[in-house]
Amino acid sequence: MTDNYCVIMGGGIGSRFWPFSRESYPKQFLDFFGTGRSLLQMTFDRFAKIIPVENIYVATNEAYFDLMKLQLPELNENQFLLEPSRRNTAPCIAYASYRINACNPNANIIVAPSDHLILKEEEFLHDVQKALDFVRENKALATLGIKPSRPETGYGYIQNSDKMIGEFTKVKTFTEKPNLEIAKVFQQSGEFFWNSGIFIWNVNTILEAFSKLLPDISVRFDLGKHLFNTDKERAFVKEHFAYCPNISIDYGIMEKADNVYMLCVDFGWADLGTWGSLYDLANKDENENAILKNTKVLTYESFRNVIAIDNPGRLVVIEGLEDFIVAESGNVLLICKKDDEQRIKQFVADAQLKFGKEYK
Amino acid sequence: MTDNYCVIMGGGIGSRFWPFSRESYPKQFLDFFGTGRSLLQMTFDRFAKIIPVENIYVATNEAYFDLMKLQLPELNENQFLLEPSRRNTAPCIAYASYRINACNPNANIIVAPSDHLILKEEEFLHDVQKALDFVRENKALATLGIKPSRPETGYGYIQNSDKMIGEFTKVKTFTEKPNLEIAKVFQQSGEFFWNSGIFIWNVNTILEAFSKLLPDISVRFDLGKHLFNTDKERAFVKEHFAYCPNISIDYGIMEKADNVYMLCVDFGWADLGTWGSLYDLANKDENENAILKNTKVLTYESFRNVIAIDNPGRLVVIEGLEDFIVAESGNVLLICKKDDEQRIKQFVADAQLKFGKEYK
Repeated sequence: MTDNYCVIMGGGIGSRFWPFSRESYPKQFLDFFGTGRSLLQMTFDRFAKIIPVENIYVATNEAYFDLMKLQLPELNENQFLLEPSRRNTAPCIAYASYRINACNPNANIIVAPSDHLILKEEEFLHDVQKALDFVRENKALATLGIKPSRPETGYGYIQNSDKMIGEFTKVKTFTEKPNLEIAKVFQQSGEFFWNSGIFIWNVNTILEAFSKLLPDISVRFDLGKHLFNTDKERAFVKEHFAYCPNISIDYGIMEKADNVYMLCVDFGWADLGTWGSLYDLANKDENENAILKNTKVLTYESFRNVIAIDNPGRLVVIEGLEDFIVAESGNVLLICKKDDEQRIKQFVADAQLKFGKEYK
Repeated sequence: MTDNYCVIMGGGIGSRFWPFSRESYPKQFLDFFGTGRSLLQMTFDRFAKIIPVENIYVATNEAYFDLMKLQLPELNENQFLLEPSRRNTAPCIAYASYRINACNPNANIIVAPSDHLILKEEEFLHDVQKALDFVRENKALATLGIKPSRPETGYGYIQNSDKMIGEFTKVKTFTEKPNLEIAKVFQQSGEFFWNSGIFIWNVNTILEAFSKLLPDISVRFDLGKHLFNTDKERAFVKEHFAYCPNISIDYGIMEKADNVYMLCVDFGWADLGTWGSLYDLANKDENENAILKNTKVLTYESFRNVIAIDNPGRLVVIEGLEDFIVAESGNVLLICKKDDEQRIKQFVADAQLKFGKEYK
């Protein structure tokens, strides 16, 4: 039996991909590339190659429980960790850690978002294995830092130091998303890496970190420590989860802990956070249009658009359009400039206000 | 009993309004303005105010018979004149003339397209009445010439003379669509009027004109003269119609006859021939977007677009778009520059070739 566990975090709303992602159907459930598997399912498939299926947990908001069961029928119901309210990543990870600790107090855990794209799977699995081995031997909070391929302003960065344990370097700082000037300096320095949001640790190491750095959370979960992995867990979590502070694991623990180590990796990673990132990654036609989801499309004098139509019978004819997003899904058609996609949240809010919740 | 009759021509395909108009559902059947009545129905409603319903005939391609019956349940089946093949307006009008002649050899007939917009109905009806009275007294082929309100290059023009009978002026020439320079001269001259394609004549006058100017057609129809308005008409027309030359009434008769008279009118007329003409006529929002069919739409920094979505539940969000057509109907979404709409025919042909007849 292995001590290796995996926690896939799949509770986000992903409103930046509206109208494809909806509050009732967030982006992790979407099959953006028309491969037949959603981002969540692809994440599961990857981990299932090196982690026993019974050791894979999926944390999500309880509103998505039905969708989760539908997309991951391989898992038992108790492998879904249901969050009764939205409280960012720290409470989510605390919950997962307490549950896994109750199952196996020697567990080494990899925690990963459900909506990332990874193109070089073999390298990825090799690196994950390395990190799991590392945290079994070292009381470290490990993370994977992605070698930057461009001066990306949409990601946070991790600065490493020259202090090393094996291939792992001690992390100096975590940074916010930089502006373009700074991103260029970061990339050239060779010292800064993209923060993948993927974490690896032994369950004892992370529980100690919670005790020390986020006692508000650990004190509350300690109240029910003996209830995890029993039939009383659900009621306990329902009662206490909402009282946890709304805080990310990055801010609450990783930026403050003194035992954070990073493995520098390069496995074709992308956080599909925006239509723009999707555009960068997708295959393009000869006019640099990214046409997703096997959309039937005819383009004329149209360049550098993202065209995503979630309707198998629909034909889209586009003429004279440049640098736009054309996305249709369900009851919404969105046509907006690629450069202005940060306004989508506003569009969703306006749509809901003016036309009702069914457009959210 | 009145001798006044009306023929509504409703056999066109109207492919320039794709994807709203389809070969299986041409534009005369569409309710562009969301009023609850199609262009055809509005045409019928107008004439029904001054012509007895039993004297109203609708000529159409037999492919549209079911649609016609659905939209005009007020008519008996024998009031639909079914063309077995597409032969332009001259054979269509000949058929209607022979039928009406068999019913009433004193008939005065107004012939009008089914897809025109008329904003000032009272003036229109007044002018039609005037023209029907005129052709009862005079062996004239009358037409209505629209006072040009702008140097329109999308219409043909009629030049009048100073020879008059009452309010009617003798027509000097019919012209093709002019370029902008010439259209400006036409408008300023006061001598040129838009060709409305609306004709008024006594049945004997038009039958004589066919005999004289289009004997190919009249000789053929004369063969079955005694069969019109009997149960043998259908079979006769089916057998002979396809042999008629494909020719317009304008080219075949109006441009050649020496008894053509025009009444100068001004009743808010428009031939809804293109998205552009629809744009010109439609109500606009404060950014000059024309939003048709009660489309639910949110626009941001978008100007002078035509937005037409034939889907009651659909919300469209448009940002940063200027001078485009955004039209969605059935299985097609079209986004193209307003100035390039003459390419739509090509889009339809390409769509059919690449994706199949269901997109035609």
